[in-house]
Amino acid sequence: MIRVGVVGATGYAGAELVRILSGHPKVKLTVVTSRQYAGIRFDKIFPSMAGHIDLVCEELSVERIFKRADIFFLSLPHKIPMEIVPFLINKGKKVIDLSADFRFKNHTIYSAYYQQHTAKDLLEKAVYGLSEIYYDKIKSADIIGNPGCYPTSALLPLIPLLKAGLIDSKTIITDSKSGVSGAGRSLALASHFCEVNESFKAYKVAVHRHNPEINEILSHETGKDIKITFVPHLVPMTRGMLTTSYAKLKKNVTAEKINEQMKSFYSGRPFIRLLYDNKMLPDTIRVRGTNYCDIGFVIDRQTNRIILISAIDNLVKGASGQAVQNMNIMLGFDETAGLISVPYPI
Amino acid sequence: MIRVGVVGATGYAGAELVRILSGHPKVKLTVVTSRQYAGIRFDKIFPSMAGHIDLVCEELSVERIFKRADIFFLSLPHKIPMEIVPFLINKGKKVIDLSADFRFKNHTIYSAYYQQHTAKDLLEKAVYGLSEIYYDKIKSADIIGNPGCYPTSALLPLIPLLKAGLIDSKTIITDSKSGVSGAGRSLALASHFCEVNESFKAYKVAVHRHNPEINEILSHETGKDIKITFVPHLVPMTRGMLTTSYAKLKKNVTAEKINEQMKSFYSGRPFIRLLYDNKMLPDTIRVRGTNYCDIGFVIDRQTNRIILISAIDNLVKGASGQAVQNMNIMLGFDETAGLISVPYPI
Amino acid sequence: MIRVGVVGATGYAGAELVRILSGHPKVKLTVVTSRQYAGIRFDKIFPSMAGHIDLVCEELSVERIFKRADIFFLSLPHKIPMEIVPFLINKGKKVIDLSADFRFKNHTIYSAYYQQHTAKDLLEKAVYGLSEIYYDKIKSADIIGNPGCYPTSALLPLIPLLKAGLIDSKTIITDSKSGVSGAGRSLALASHFCEVNESFKAYKVAVHRHNPEINEILSHETGKDIKITFVPHLVPMTRGMLTTSYAKLKKNVTAEKINEQMKSFYSGRPFIRLLYDNKMLPDTIRVRGTNYCDIGFVIDRQTNRIILISAIDNLVKGASGQAVQNMNIMLGFDETAGLISVPYPI
Amino acid sequence: MIRVGVVGATGYAGAELVRILSGHPKVKLTVVTSRQYAGIRFDKIFPSMAGHIDLVCEELSVERIFKRADIFFLSLPHKIPMEIVPFLINKGKKVIDLSADFRFKNHTIYSAYYQQHTAKDLLEKAVYGLSEIYYDKIKSADIIGNPGCYPTSALLPLIPLLKAGLIDSKTIITDSKSGVSGAGRSLALASHFCEVNESFKAYKVAVHRHNPEINEILSHETGKDIKITFVPHLVPMTRGMLTTSYAKLKKNVTAEKINEQMKSFYSGRPFIRLLYDNKMLPDTIRVRGTNYCDIGFVIDRQTNRIILISAIDNLVKGASGQAVQNMNIMLGFDETAGLISVPYPI
Repeated sequence: MIRVGVVGATGYAGAELVRILSGHPKVKLTVVTSRQYAGIRFDKIFPSMAGHIDLVCEELSVERIFKRADIFFLSLPHKIPMEIVPFLINKGKKVIDLSADFRFKNHTIYSAYYQQHTAKDLLEKAVYGLSEIYYDKIKSADIIGNPGCYPTSALLPLIPLLKAGLIDSKTIITDSKSGVSGAGRSLALASHFCEVNESFKAYKVAVHRHNPEINEILSHETGKDIKITFVPHLVPMTRGMLTTSYAKLKKNVTAEKINEQMKSFYSGRPFIRLLYDNKMLPDTIRVRGTNYCDIGFVIDRQTNRIILISAIDNLVKGASGQAVQNMNIMLGFDETAGLISVPYPI
Repeated sequence: MIRVGVVGATGYAGAELVRILSGHPKVKLTVVTSRQYAGIRFDKIFPSMAGHIDLVCEELSVERIFKRADIFFLSLPHKIPMEIVPFLINKGKKVIDLSADFRFKNHTIYSAYYQQHTAKDLLEKAVYGLSEIYYDKIKSADIIGNPGCYPTSALLPLIPLLKAGLIDSKTIITDSKSGVSGAGRSLALASHFCEVNESFKAYKVAVHRHNPEINEILSHETGKDIKITFVPHLVPMTRGMLTTSYAKLKKNVTAEKINEQMKSFYSGRPFIRLLYDNKMLPDTIRVRGTNYCDIGFVIDRQTNRIILISAIDNLVKGASGQAVQNMNIMLGFDETAGLISVPYPI
Repeated sequence: MIRVGVVGATGYAGAELVRILSGHPKVKLTVVTSRQYAGIRFDKIFPSMAGHIDLVCEELSVERIFKRADIFFLSLPHKIPMEIVPFLINKGKKVIDLSADFRFKNHTIYSAYYQQHTAKDLLEKAVYGLSEIYYDKIKSADIIGNPGCYPTSALLPLIPLLKAGLIDSKTIITDSKSGVSGAGRSLALASHFCEVNESFKAYKVAVHRHNPEINEILSHETGKDIKITFVPHLVPMTRGMLTTSYAKLKKNVTAEKINEQMKSFYSGRPFIRLLYDNKMLPDTIRVRGTNYCDIGFVIDRQTNRIILISAIDNLVKGASGQAVQNMNIMLGFDETAGLISVPYPI
Repeated sequence: MIRVGVVGATGYAGAELVRILSGHPKVKLTVVTSRQYAGIRFDKIFPSMAGHIDLVCEELSVERIFKRADIFFLSLPHKIPMEIVPFLINKGKKVIDLSADFRFKNHTIYSAYYQQHTAKDLLEKAVYGLSEIYYDKIKSADIIGNPGCYPTSALLPLIPLLKAGLIDSKTIITDSKSGVSGAGRSLALASHFCEVNESFKAYKVAVHRHNPEINEILSHETGKDIKITFVPHLVPMTRGMLTTSYAKLKKNVTAEKINEQMKSFYSGRPFIRLLYDNKMLPDTIRVRGTNYCDIGFVIDRQTNRIILISAIDNLVKGASGQAVQNMNIMLGFDETAGLISVPYPI
């Protein structure tokens, strides 16, 4: 059995990794680290999982833990991963990093939005873990830069249409809405119940760090220099992300053509559910707790724009679920291993 | 004292009218009608108001009620208002209609989205009750077509910029988000707690009836044929509406220029709060229960687009508060009478 | 493979049965009925499950469906089950009924709170499906009267203490709090989002039908005539039930004694999690989506009362999960089959 | 005009004081202090109130501020008030303290639950500010120990029945449920959105500091040594508190008798709404943002217990509203000044 470690296990994405990996049929979770809770049993921090995991959180020390797992998931603030990934790779480990440290090919963009990159040589080696798009590269990757939640929800509907030349790449506007768990478990007034409940707002308008991440992937996929306008919003709910993207259609593009392209592009992909044929639109509640990305669209004929709508669970397909999906692909497991349970009706 | 009646008092907009009018210093609420609750005291239906109103709901019969009030607020499903407004106008009453029946100048647009209009001759007489924009006409109006909630939130930030030629009218996209009270008090699965809670979704994408309402006013204000793309979404909260609009800036338009135009356009308007100078963005929780429209904006220099954000309480500035604001203007009261109380911190 | 049918599949408990049974390793779901949605694919009603079930809802007709399943779950309004269960039993089927029709041994109590019982002869045969308490009888039962959600959460902590004579049976007060899904999917003002959100209230105070159900079981278990005071409340959340029960301790009863009795009574029961040793108290969020009943307690020494607190998911251990647990016991499967997935951290 | 200061203005209770006092017709708010936000305009911290208050927060220094107000509201952590109240009283100021420092007559109880009391001599002078009960003493008081939210909601329904000897004082159990704003604005995992949303739990079971506060007042009012069992719970909503109290009825006490006692006891009290005659029960949503305490009750004849239910807004009648009500009484204003606006329907 493959042994896995979760470094940074007590944030929400880390805990969600622990949830999925504890129930995964092909791996054994052997290490969980937490700076804040070192020395404490994991199920004291997350008592919902009592009876399912008996590991104790330990301080992060790669020297001490590297031998005890074959693959490591890093769920840490950016900057720390690029300090420890070289060591792990050097020891022959595989790494799936949920931070931004290994998402960019162009380190100058990374530097502009984060800080100096200190492991530039590994960027070339790293694969952007948008599973459906980079499936083949992921198979043989040793380092995955796991995508941000917003980029996942924005890119999956846009890429097939851009690649097929069905929409005008200069007109893309992406208006995203995220549940509060996206802000993490660290205390902040912005996540304080009474400040969020009965509140809806935009934040980091046109300056969010996921904007250059989306731009880079879209540009890479099309060979063009694409810059989208990106505005994230906060929804008073725990989990879920809905992304509404707008673009001008190229001439004579019909709904049928869009539908066909989506269907053929995502043919056989187990976590993409295309709703057009059922004339339905995505709703975050229908993907809650799952690794699905539901995609729907509507054409506004009066303006010849397409409205693309996608829904994911920001902690699953937007983070930990996709990370495990990537592990499955890397290790040759069934892509859905550990990730398929019947979704809740409500 | 002016006597006022609320026709259709037991929906959410109607009850909000009752709330505001019961506390209004210049008017006396004398009539409340309700088909569903005729014969029952109003405060049995809305016990929060026990001690503040002792009226009994009665069946709607204009013949029976018209003598008992000088001005009528209609909070009814569309179609009924156009059947009873002619009678009320004929009797010399003033009418503020919260339905769509008197919002459109062009009855063919109304017919396309609602049904045949049966009181076309009154459309010319009716004034669109967007208080800040049509203030002068409202002063002398007898019929107000009170704006929809989405149009109110979308039009207030857009009109000043379009009139000053600062944005490109062909590029407007409006992505709106509304609390659930906007769907009314009628039972529906779409308002059932467990279907809405922890859910976020778009609905009536590019086919919502507020789209042509926005188009008509923008076109009328600019003399151009403007068609925007409009997508409403549902937020799991009771009250509040946030609208994010996108448009290309004309050449060389700076943030300062936008700010100056907003400030001069809304100078002295008591319910518009412009947030740019404070570098803040609107949040629905800050206008909850108030008649304010908070407006902020951000310029995305990488794409030369402006992002306009406005927040209102959909039941107050988006419906009943603006209706009372219009009454205040019509009757020569202070515009803020009955509408100013210090907002809650949370 | 055992074939199972869900009669009344499109209410929340029914849909939750479909969810669990679709993922159950030992059974095949073959029939789903729905009066309201007959002829429509189940996953059109509950699109979250698209890709997991392809059955079409059909009208309820026992004659037509009985051959297609070996065991039937009934998730119907009371009264209908007692009309169809005799037929199903006669055909050799096993039945797990989620209504109140087969919960009472004493049909006069049933009649007093519901209506005349028309299948009295089957009451003797029926077993009350509180799995941990009636495990042995359930093994050989053909009809299960599946417990109500409130009784499940109230009885599990009370029974061990009453049976061991540790608390005074005349002093029991049970104050329960339920999420809104307990009120079902039928439209009602009491489940309308804006009426429930930001609201907390008691309802059916001391007249709820689950009160006599609790009384009967407690009386049966102790041989005394026990009547508790029972007050249910509604919490603005979708899933979850927390029950706080109060009772006078018998003389010299210590916390250790309570703890020992709980531990020995529930030794080996996979779905009971006793929290005392961890000095923790139950929280509904920790059992969300699971079949667990978490139990904690505190002793108030100043009044010599014990406060017992239990948390369940009202739709799982409080309804459909326990129903499947009962099926597992009846059919000799592992008691946890289909019911164990790692709980979410949030 | 009377000048008032709010010391500790940027917690939730402090901000609510600012809201009410800014709109009060008889006083002028002249000082707001805040350790955390000294030097910043209050409406930058609470932008909802922009346009309603232009004060700047300042550091707490009684020497510097005492001359600028005639009456001070203290909304501070306990311990600080007892350090500064002696100074203020010495300078002839009136003080309304929202902490526990001046609530107890018996300083040994205070010490047992908080810390050594350092201003014991003032305890005799201080009046417990439960407005309806201590109205006459409040009139001439200089120091008010403003009640806790739980005690307010528990005491108001219990006192009339205990004083009339209608219930057995040894059998009282109080099960309370509070919205999250009761936990304040300080960051804590227990108030973090994702930990609270969709969660319901009990906390500080039988050890909450409001328990001795309730005990002391009940004992004082009856001349008996009363100890109740008290269990608080946390509800996933912002504002509101519902308290369910249980007690054995004395022999032959009828509902009519209870109702008469309540009515005569609270005759003329503007903020008590008795619901029995309307056969209604309290709901927190109906008192949201108001200073009302709604009281209802049900008699459980099978056990001869009464269930008393009261609803308040924890920040208004449970804190800042009652504080202003006390100021009104102290200064001879109309008791409702600044506190009556028509409640929202939802």
